[in-house]
Amino acid sequence: MSIRVTVFNEYLHETFDEKVRGIYPDGIHGTIAAFLKEADFSVTTATQNMEEHGLTEEVLASTDVLIWWAHLIHDKVSDEVVERVYERVMEGMGLIVLHSGHASKIFRKLMGTHTERLRWRESDDKEILYVVNPSHDIVNGLADHIVIPHEETYGEYFDIPEPEEQIFISWYEGGEVFRSGCTWRRGKGKIFYFKPGHESYPIYHMKEIQKIICNAVLWAAPKHNMTLTEGHTPIPMAEKK
Amino acid sequence: MSIRVTVFNEYLHETFDEKVRGIYPDGIHGTIAAFLKEADFSVTTATQNMEEHGLTEEVLASTDVLIWWAHLIHDKVSDEVVERVYERVMEGMGLIVLHSGHASKIFRKLMGTHTERLRWRESDDKEILYVVNPSHDIVNGLADHIVIPHEETYGEYFDIPEPEEQIFISWYEGGEVFRSGCTWRRGKGKIFYFKPGHESYPIYHMKEIQKIICNAVLWAAPKHNMTLTEGHTPIPMAEKK
Amino acid sequence: MSIRVTVFNEYLHETFDEKVRGIYPDGIHGTIAAFLKEADFSVTTATQNMEEHGLTEEVLASTDVLIWWAHLIHDKVSDEVVERVYERVMEGMGLIVLHSGHASKIFRKLMGTHTERLRWRESDDKEILYVVNPSHDIVNGLADHIVIPHEETYGEYFDIPEPEEQIFISWYEGGEVFRSGCTWRRGKGKIFYFKPGHESYPIYHMKEIQKIICNAVLWAAPKHNMTLTEGHTPIPMAEKK
Amino acid sequence: MSIRVTVFNEYLHETFDEKVRGIYPDGIHGTIAAFLKEADFSVTTATQNMEEHGLTEEVLASTDVLIWWAHLIHDKVSDEVVERVYERVMEGMGLIVLHSGHASKIFRKLMGTHTERLRWRESDDKEILYVVNPSHDIVNGLADHIVIPHEETYGEYFDIPEPEEQIFISWYEGGEVFRSGCTWRRGKGKIFYFKPGHESYPIYHMKEIQKIICNAVLWAAPKHNMTLTEGHTPIPMAEKK
Repeated sequence: MSIRVTVFNEYLHETFDEKVRGIYPDGIHGTIAAFLKEADFSVTTATQNMEEHGLTEEVLASTDVLIWWAHLIHDKVSDEVVERVYERVMEGMGLIVLHSGHASKIFRKLMGTHTERLRWRESDDKEILYVVNPSHDIVNGLADHIVIPHEETYGEYFDIPEPEEQIFISWYEGGEVFRSGCTWRRGKGKIFYFKPGHESYPIYHMKEIQKIICNAVLWAAPKHNMTLTEGHTPIPMAEKK
Repeated sequence: MSIRVTVFNEYLHETFDEKVRGIYPDGIHGTIAAFLKEADFSVTTATQNMEEHGLTEEVLASTDVLIWWAHLIHDKVSDEVVERVYERVMEGMGLIVLHSGHASKIFRKLMGTHTERLRWRESDDKEILYVVNPSHDIVNGLADHIVIPHEETYGEYFDIPEPEEQIFISWYEGGEVFRSGCTWRRGKGKIFYFKPGHESYPIYHMKEIQKIICNAVLWAAPKHNMTLTEGHTPIPMAEKK
Repeated sequence: MSIRVTVFNEYLHETFDEKVRGIYPDGIHGTIAAFLKEADFSVTTATQNMEEHGLTEEVLASTDVLIWWAHLIHDKVSDEVVERVYERVMEGMGLIVLHSGHASKIFRKLMGTHTERLRWRESDDKEILYVVNPSHDIVNGLADHIVIPHEETYGEYFDIPEPEEQIFISWYEGGEVFRSGCTWRRGKGKIFYFKPGHESYPIYHMKEIQKIICNAVLWAAPKHNMTLTEGHTPIPMAEKK
Repeated sequence: MSIRVTVFNEYLHETFDEKVRGIYPDGIHGTIAAFLKEADFSVTTATQNMEEHGLTEEVLASTDVLIWWAHLIHDKVSDEVVERVYERVMEGMGLIVLHSGHASKIFRKLMGTHTERLRWRESDDKEILYVVNPSHDIVNGLADHIVIPHEETYGEYFDIPEPEEQIFISWYEGGEVFRSGCTWRRGKGKIFYFKPGHESYPIYHMKEIQKIICNAVLWAAPKHNMTLTEGHTPIPMAEKK
């Protein structure tokens, strides 16, 4: 069975900003869903204005990897849905947080820090992503660096826990660096934060970026589901067969 | 100026359990405060039944390291106080979480996982703690292992993020192992989880355990307070002097 | 094409010790090769008394994952072969170091520490391995702990660099703990150290242990081979297209 | 007693290059020794042309932290001296590797990778170092970024094991990024690699750079010396008192 991906998009910029709609006529989620389908994943989309943001119990129960893009109204995501997504990550659902999703409630909850804190500028900077973990599954098939002609600039200090694996570090024309590809595990879930993807640039149309997101889906998808014993276990383990 | 430590204790077992009161007549916080004072730290105590659990803005603003012991009524800790402690950790306050404090709201919030999940048994097991990071400040002056004659047993899987530094791993007579000393950084704060200290055993009277907690206070105390730029910074960094 | 595994075994205990020969009539390498073949890997074996220990340029060039078991004569492994294996790891070959292989020249060279240093006892102890990274590929299909009825005891402090991923921690009846499953990356190669497998016990005949080694082969095998630029690169990266 | 630092410098550029001698008339080691003395450390210097490169048994036995600057003739450092330095790191001596020291025998041996591999250019680039671990002892008293007006450029991929702590990441005008401040522990020793310090620029005269090196000495110096049991320990740990 193919991996089941749900792409969540706030889907707001595309509704009021002509430029963004020009780049993503079907929404950012539409573009991401399209290249994932081409890569033979089983894909669903969800947007903020849907009932329960489209992230019902049923949807999440049948999601292997959730992709999260949002920017303007993180605060409007219901706490109940955040809690639900959180529990699914604990159970093994993969989570890929894109770009401004760094400030989302779910990412903050999983990291335990003020992940909304970083520097930023909009000035059409060139961004170069450098691979710093060349054997990682997420960089499969890539060159050792990727050039994005124009992108919003993010800069350090980015308030995240030390990444378990640092995959990419970005350079920006105007003088910033950023830890732009990072992984962590929480509970049984795997998390990948990936920085590129400002709404005003056609970044999710780039083949290399699509390749990275496809790789990340493969990496983050649960491969098994281990039953973990917990709580009061009165029989000493040494006495068990 | 000496490091300012606040010892928070739920202070409940000692009020209704004769055995515990026998071991800790001044409360667990009283015992911990006493050996910290002897080590020349500046010490305050706080308990759950105090106004705002004794963790007011004023108290926290003048705390360098907070020690947290609690067990029975984690849920009764006010969310406002948890939020306040959290923000102080982000700003640099050290946090030492002891024993059953693993299930506290504050530890769960900082870790982003179900840290309340682990195995446990009460059966007077011997525990041996092994040092696995021999050059760490927290093990200064210790032998390479510590024997606790009787202790409550905790066992893996302990649902924590991969520790940034693994300091101790424990062995229990009945067949369990446990990651019993772990560090993480969150924001500008340093966190140490240390497993020993069940209320029914005189563990905080042991010299080695006291030494570890004193070392951890020295390690966790903020040494400086870096100002971090964040948010919209329109001038490219490269143009600054 | 299936993953190509080379199993290196010192192959000495089996030649002079009746008990060991009884357990491993075809050598430890023979038993490991057999279950790997059953799992559809493409398998070759190599032993110390072969020309160049069976690890010629040709053999290594066509090896995806090398498994290493040795004990008595680490010093007799030629430095030239060690250098050759090292360069293949740098290029992406996976390496699985088993049991007493912790003291091998190649493992010491890759770790940069005295990995031969640890405690050990032979006394038929029960060993229990606990999973501490439940979503890792290496624990696919396992229970959350594994019992080995009798095994040689290893104990901390084990002089290794902090593992990048801690997969298993072991408990021993006599009072020791051990970091028994650990991963690191070096260059483009992935390394897994796995403790079980004393020659006097039929440990490589256990289904769970076989499963772990098969999983580790899948994990350690190179998935791609990124070309990394190095050295003098006079053209500024920002000027490249 | 103050911390005893030995500054090793190859001391070659300064002997034949007018420009370098103009910047470092007493050698790079002389400049580093001078600001360390001012900071009240007890300082010795050693250079490659001295007997045993000035790193005799006696010198190393009384060294708490060794600083290593070298560039042109890494291969000429005697293997015996490298071995001696290595054993002292295992025993707890701190090691600070500066700039082109990344390609030294001792750093390669401790890391287990081809640390000589990275990109480089000489073109007077501006370098900006960003702090990514704001509570670390090594960044005590600094701003959250440091500007070096002109420096040799290093770029990723830098072939190092994943740092245990990432302290600085550097930006270069021409488009490169570099993991410019990294820590690891090996045996009982602490290691800090710090990138700045090309011989053609007055970088070790900069107050911030001096502050970082002083902080690193304080961090890397051994605080205690734990006796670690190893080898055959026939008595089960559980039976010991």
